[in-house]
Amino acid sequence: MKRTFVLILSNIFFSSAFLSAQEDQHALFIKDIYDYTLQNAKCGQWLGYLSDTIGGRLAGSQASLDAVDYTASELDDIAIVDRIEKQRCTVPRWQRGPAEKVKISYKHNSGMINIQQNLNALALGNTVGTGPQGLEGEIVEVFGLDTLETLGRAALEGKIVFFNRPMSNRHINTMYAYGEAVDQRVHGASRASKYGAAAVIVRSMTNIIDDLPHTGVQRYQDDITPIPALAISTRDAENLSQILKSQSVKCHIQNQAQILSDTISYNVIAEIKGSEFPDEIILVGGHLDSWDVGGGAHDDGAGCVHSMQVIQTMDALGYKPKRTIRCVLFMNEENGLGGGIAYAEASNKKGEFHLAALESDSGGFTPRGFGCSADAEVFKPYLAKFQEFDVFLEPYDLYLKAGGGGADIGPLKSQKGLLIGFRPDNQRYFDFHHTTADVMENVNLRELNLGAAAITSLIYLIDQFGLK
Amino acid sequence: MKRTFVLILSNIFFSSAFLSAQEDQHALFIKDIYDYTLQNAKCGQWLGYLSDTIGGRLAGSQASLDAVDYTASELDDIAIVDRIEKQRCTVPRWQRGPAEKVKISYKHNSGMINIQQNLNALALGNTVGTGPQGLEGEIVEVFGLDTLETLGRAALEGKIVFFNRPMSNRHINTMYAYGEAVDQRVHGASRASKYGAAAVIVRSMTNIIDDLPHTGVQRYQDDITPIPALAISTRDAENLSQILKSQSVKCHIQNQAQILSDTISYNVIAEIKGSEFPDEIILVGGHLDSWDVGGGAHDDGAGCVHSMQVIQTMDALGYKPKRTIRCVLFMNEENGLGGGIAYAEASNKKGEFHLAALESDSGGFTPRGFGCSADAEVFKPYLAKFQEFDVFLEPYDLYLKAGGGGADIGPLKSQKGLLIGFRPDNQRYFDFHHTTADVMENVNLRELNLGAAAITSLIYLIDQFGLK
Repeated sequence: MKRTFVLILSNIFFSSAFLSAQEDQHALFIKDIYDYTLQNAKCGQWLGYLSDTIGGRLAGSQASLDAVDYTASELDDIAIVDRIEKQRCTVPRWQRGPAEKVKISYKHNSGMINIQQNLNALALGNTVGTGPQGLEGEIVEVFGLDTLETLGRAALEGKIVFFNRPMSNRHINTMYAYGEAVDQRVHGASRASKYGAAAVIVRSMTNIIDDLPHTGVQRYQDDITPIPALAISTRDAENLSQILKSQSVKCHIQNQAQILSDTISYNVIAEIKGSEFPDEIILVGGHLDSWDVGGGAHDDGAGCVHSMQVIQTMDALGYKPKRTIRCVLFMNEENGLGGGIAYAEASNKKGEFHLAALESDSGGFTPRGFGCSADAEVFKPYLAKFQEFDVFLEPYDLYLKAGGGGADIGPLKSQKGLLIGFRPDNQRYFDFHHTTADVMENVNLRELNLGAAAITSLIYLIDQFGLK
Repeated sequence: MKRTFVLILSNIFFSSAFLSAQEDQHALFIKDIYDYTLQNAKCGQWLGYLSDTIGGRLAGSQASLDAVDYTASELDDIAIVDRIEKQRCTVPRWQRGPAEKVKISYKHNSGMINIQQNLNALALGNTVGTGPQGLEGEIVEVFGLDTLETLGRAALEGKIVFFNRPMSNRHINTMYAYGEAVDQRVHGASRASKYGAAAVIVRSMTNIIDDLPHTGVQRYQDDITPIPALAISTRDAENLSQILKSQSVKCHIQNQAQILSDTISYNVIAEIKGSEFPDEIILVGGHLDSWDVGGGAHDDGAGCVHSMQVIQTMDALGYKPKRTIRCVLFMNEENGLGGGIAYAEASNKKGEFHLAALESDSGGFTPRGFGCSADAEVFKPYLAKFQEFDVFLEPYDLYLKAGGGGADIGPLKSQKGLLIGFRPDNQRYFDFHHTTADVMENVNLRELNLGAAAITSLIYLIDQFGLK
């Protein structure tokens, strides 16, 4: 495409023609936010350090504490910040151990040759280990949790259950496809254990076929015997399924993951006190912990540096907020929510009110918009006010819709403020999610910066107009 | 992010609740289009062949003729196609020659040491060569065409003019930033030649700093002596600019590009005859030629396979269009528009009427929406009708706006139909545009498929409802 002679007028100038002088001033400030962020943002530099220098930072690990110190120190360097806090919280501690092994063995179709094959695998978070000798069993493939009940103990005792229902490619929103499939990863081990299974392997949560295993949380119910749970890559899952059509397959699993005792960690909080309504808190945050593999660049280093950038941009532009702006980097979203719960408890104890809490936890891709939710009683007026911001954000191709929030800010719901989720484009999210590929190289700096600018603009509008 | 317990309801189901039974039927067919395309589309396979097997395919090259044969044959294999045509057109023929060299030499700050350095460079399309000996001159840096007039012949005679105004990072729409900067590439050589310059080097058209030179068209005015024109990478441009602050810099350029005589090439046309209104043509197209470097994957292999996919999906779903649907793969968009002009001439001669013509020429990224334009007299009613489709496309996060079209379909404007441009996300477009990196590896298959589904859906709606 050349477009040599095509003059493409920016939407921004079209739109401002319909704004009042007062509104114009806000539109111009939002343009300043975008100009500054796209040219001078620090979020890319921060994210490079978090994801590539510190790297994977599961709650309870030394790396997660390094991330606390690093981000607290960077935020403390921003002049406009009135208060920095490292807020204590209790987090679980799970350690992966040496590289896990999943080896399958089966007879060649001829019946004469034994074939052995290693699969690309990762232990799921919070799983128990197999012990150094590993364990072995025959594989039983299923496509959903309820099939286990049908098969029963006779078919499952001592077996390795292979959950292989794919994330559907049919959903436009990949998050929805994830939501439909992830029960296998989260509850598969508990459900299979009830019928005496020895272990589970789960098809990785991604909508592409490749060799990367995707880890993620699994949870044991209290009333079952914990059994090991691992993810295998989608390509291995496809191949294994093919083999199982004609052969029985044995599987040897080795996985020395350990569940250790709970430990102490921290949320990082940086606050700018509001000049007019200091008791109305506007929170912007992400989660500082990530899975131990990869660098947690999209999940959720991006959300952390987006939130830090809001503060830094306000500082750089000399903006003094009317309301209290709080950047919160939560600990332990991935496997416990210790940080989010501790934050809400402390806030409730002080009688605080969060007028709005925005979480960025969907990656550093091109922004599409924001979704919001709240307590039913107060939601409609909030939504109406929220959607009035459309005139300022539509020129940046951002929508404002009902429906959204975030795991870490969820516990704040009882304060009856507005909970907002940042929604970037999610088509590539599950190419990287919870894998060794979630590193800075797979973040596009311009897309990351656009996210920071979009979030800063919305926080600015809420600060200026409130939500009532 | 885990979202284990968050049930994210698809927008689609929300929206359909407000549709009539009649509308529901269309909504369901669009869902079928998406389902089919996301699971079974052939466009990724076609694009792999076009960009990686055939590769760069500048009009007039053997590769461009291979692309004509390949796509015509693939389209001919689709049962629903009533007519295939290879439509003759005249195209220029320009050949790059061996790898071009741009070497700068300057004195080290100490004044004692001579430094020589090769820059990452590509000859611009349609440039003349330097001859095998190359040419040499002192570099004069400018940031815009008009500066040449100020500097005048005394400062420019025999010099190599270095155009170094960057694409601005401040625009949200990268196409706009491109439109602002590209005059240097297109007209730089002609303007500098007027003042006796020996050659020009132009900062590559991209908003990132890296080592990839970006080629693209340049045009000589009739009244000037053609001088060589090359692009250098943005990183080299930044470094060179730094050196020029304290040193004079000599530059040696070697470039054996040649302008050969015009030749014959072809547009590829595949038509499905309309069952009710065969005289109302709905065109969907892209351009088959690309620059010679890279594989023309985003520019514009993506647009071609999007358009082919429309036909293939209609065939697979057993859809019989009411209006005539024509997939047109244009030749020579990049350096002449020979195909687009020939198509419109032939169409006008037959007295045809294109109710709508949609071009996809902005890459294979996540779809954002469509923009349209038309002859002023007929535009408003068209736009109103066009925007009524919003109820069907908004659930797929697609907008319908005024403003848009495409270079190849531009010559159809006199038929007073609606011209439509497909608008995917453009944040990463200039990471690859006109470079060796515009290959299949840098196309995300799911994003490509989503584009094909979006375009097919809009073509379906125009076919069903017309535009009046």
